[in-house]
Amino acid sequence: MPVGTQATVKTLSPDDLRMAGAEIILGNAYHLYLRPGSDLIEQFGGLHGFMAWNRSILTDSGGFQVFSLGHLRQLHEEGVTFRSHLDGSSHLFTPESVVRIQQELGSDIAMVLDECTTYPSDENASRESFERTTRWAQRALDAHSRSDQALFGIVQGGMHAHLRQESAAQLVELDFPGYGIGGLSVGEPKPLFYEMMAVSAAALPTPKPRYVMGVGAPDDLFAAVAAGIDMFDCVLQTRLGRNGGLLSRQGRLNIRNARFRTDPGPIDPSCDCTTCQTFSLAYLHHLFRSEEILGYRLASLHNVHWTVKLVEEMRQHIRSGTFAQLHRQFLAGYAPPNHVAAADQRKKWKGRDRSS
Amino acid sequence: MPVGTQATVKTLSPDDLRMAGAEIILGNAYHLYLRPGSDLIEQFGGLHGFMAWNRSILTDSGGFQVFSLGHLRQLHEEGVTFRSHLDGSSHLFTPESVVRIQQELGSDIAMVLDECTTYPSDENASRESFERTTRWAQRALDAHSRSDQALFGIVQGGMHAHLRQESAAQLVELDFPGYGIGGLSVGEPKPLFYEMMAVSAAALPTPKPRYVMGVGAPDDLFAAVAAGIDMFDCVLQTRLGRNGGLLSRQGRLNIRNARFRTDPGPIDPSCDCTTCQTFSLAYLHHLFRSEEILGYRLASLHNVHWTVKLVEEMRQHIRSGTFAQLHRQFLAGYAPPNHVAAADQRKKWKGRDRSS
Repeated sequence: MPVGTQATVKTLSPDDLRMAGAEIILGNAYHLYLRPGSDLIEQFGGLHGFMAWNRSILTDSGGFQVFSLGHLRQLHEEGVTFRSHLDGSSHLFTPESVVRIQQELGSDIAMVLDECTTYPSDENASRESFERTTRWAQRALDAHSRSDQALFGIVQGGMHAHLRQESAAQLVELDFPGYGIGGLSVGEPKPLFYEMMAVSAAALPTPKPRYVMGVGAPDDLFAAVAAGIDMFDCVLQTRLGRNGGLLSRQGRLNIRNARFRTDPGPIDPSCDCTTCQTFSLAYLHHLFRSEEILGYRLASLHNVHWTVKLVEEMRQHIRSGTFAQLHRQFLAGYAPPNHVAAADQRKKWKGRDRSS
Repeated sequence: MPVGTQATVKTLSPDDLRMAGAEIILGNAYHLYLRPGSDLIEQFGGLHGFMAWNRSILTDSGGFQVFSLGHLRQLHEEGVTFRSHLDGSSHLFTPESVVRIQQELGSDIAMVLDECTTYPSDENASRESFERTTRWAQRALDAHSRSDQALFGIVQGGMHAHLRQESAAQLVELDFPGYGIGGLSVGEPKPLFYEMMAVSAAALPTPKPRYVMGVGAPDDLFAAVAAGIDMFDCVLQTRLGRNGGLLSRQGRLNIRNARFRTDPGPIDPSCDCTTCQTFSLAYLHHLFRSEEILGYRLASLHNVHWTVKLVEEMRQHIRSGTFAQLHRQFLAGYAPPNHVAAADQRKKWKGRDRSS
């Protein structure tokens, strides 16, 4: 799912997204509640009508954003009070109000308000955090009334395997139609991230969608699918695109690199996106050197399309029983992220990964 | 002609431009010579191939940009030396080199190197300036060899009617396939601008295209067509768009204005562009308030489309003999530019109007 935090997937129009093959995009309750207001969006037929997107939408509850963007936040059993990062105004999010906001937004899938456990967190703090998330999940479920909208619970538990299992078990008890896995890819070492993702996924029922939140690097997507994950979202494709990072089977390219100045080839010869079918690396290099907005858009379009196609390929290989082979092949050809990726990683460590 | 200074009409893809009805766009020899280099562009099949635009292109000679953007410029009979605004490197433009650059760019219409008379300029300085432009025009004609490219001369003469007539007469003597009218809309009062435009146009042969350079505000387009002008270019549509200024039959709207926050209507009910057909003023307002790139693009797309349609309408009314009526009707309904326009005007006064 490409991320459309503020009712737009950055640089892309609904037509671009359809051309890129996106079936579902993300919106964000925190951002849209603050601006332009979920009540306003409701008057325009919800987020679908407001942004003219006729395919599916999942809205994140805004829990993560309150913790990463909100100022002076105070957490209590009732909910969380915070000041807007836009104008300093004071707000209270409760499990109930966040359900109401998402019902106004009219997304197809809503997420419960969760407490995103900070990293690192010891066992006691992690337990307190996921147990509150479960109590909030129950309240969200009680408040939820829209039958055309699915509400997902969110597994937390920090980096403690047994806590994640407990968290999952409590939520499964509540019988959500699908489950998010939160609090991952927040700065922890990759092996720990993969382990916690696998433990969380294994503790959730296979027939229901399992969604790992804020994950989107190609190698992480393979690890997620291998762990049984069905859904993921990430700003990486569009943020990387705006910064000149381009995804290809060989790894990430930095289009600003001088070696592309005269290159007549496409980003990825196997890619059938508009950018690869129409424009040379040399032209994209020129657009980025000249800081032209069209460059940010063409790069984002490619990255989203390329990722959607990659996931389609995974799906085909799962059906034909050859996913493990595809996974090995991909990793063998895919170079580790270069310095564009490193810059992206630094931003991620600031804890804003799911935010813009 | 929408302006694509750096091999892209800002925020718009070639597909957007075709959808907006653009038949011809502008490129700029000064900018493209400096970056990425006209020799590189030639290797990609010229500007058409490089930017994937299969309709017509006119390239400006870069004379105006040398004077408005170049540093430490020195004017002499041979040509003009200047330092690049990008990296300070030293360059010489001559009438011959500027023809060569545009032949490499492969535009359909090239412009001679002209000396853009500063405003205000007294009669002696204006005479010296246009006479040099004529001598340079002769040299450009001698250097020009591409039979699939038209080369236009440029009328100068400052704000002196009889000098503009002399300038035009000298160029007509050289028998160019078309003529530009330069040095207008550079800060002079509007009545003087209109007078000089009319005098210049009247001194040029009717069967050949007459092109007033750097003019594009809707009311100015009407004045230009009334004076017999056939072609114009301006950054106004895209620059205004990026700044939240939207063209409509009622005048310019500033989309950031709070009155649009809840407005479900389109920019202009009579406009059939994608923006007006798909998105509300409220959504556009939200995109601009959120500084989302999609907003800049949707606004630019509308402004270009709206202007192309307006000119098509003028053409129909000329054919049916009712242009004067349309002109009066338009002016009666069109409010004078608001503060968005004023901001645009300030930039214009800095002399960068044709540059970006």
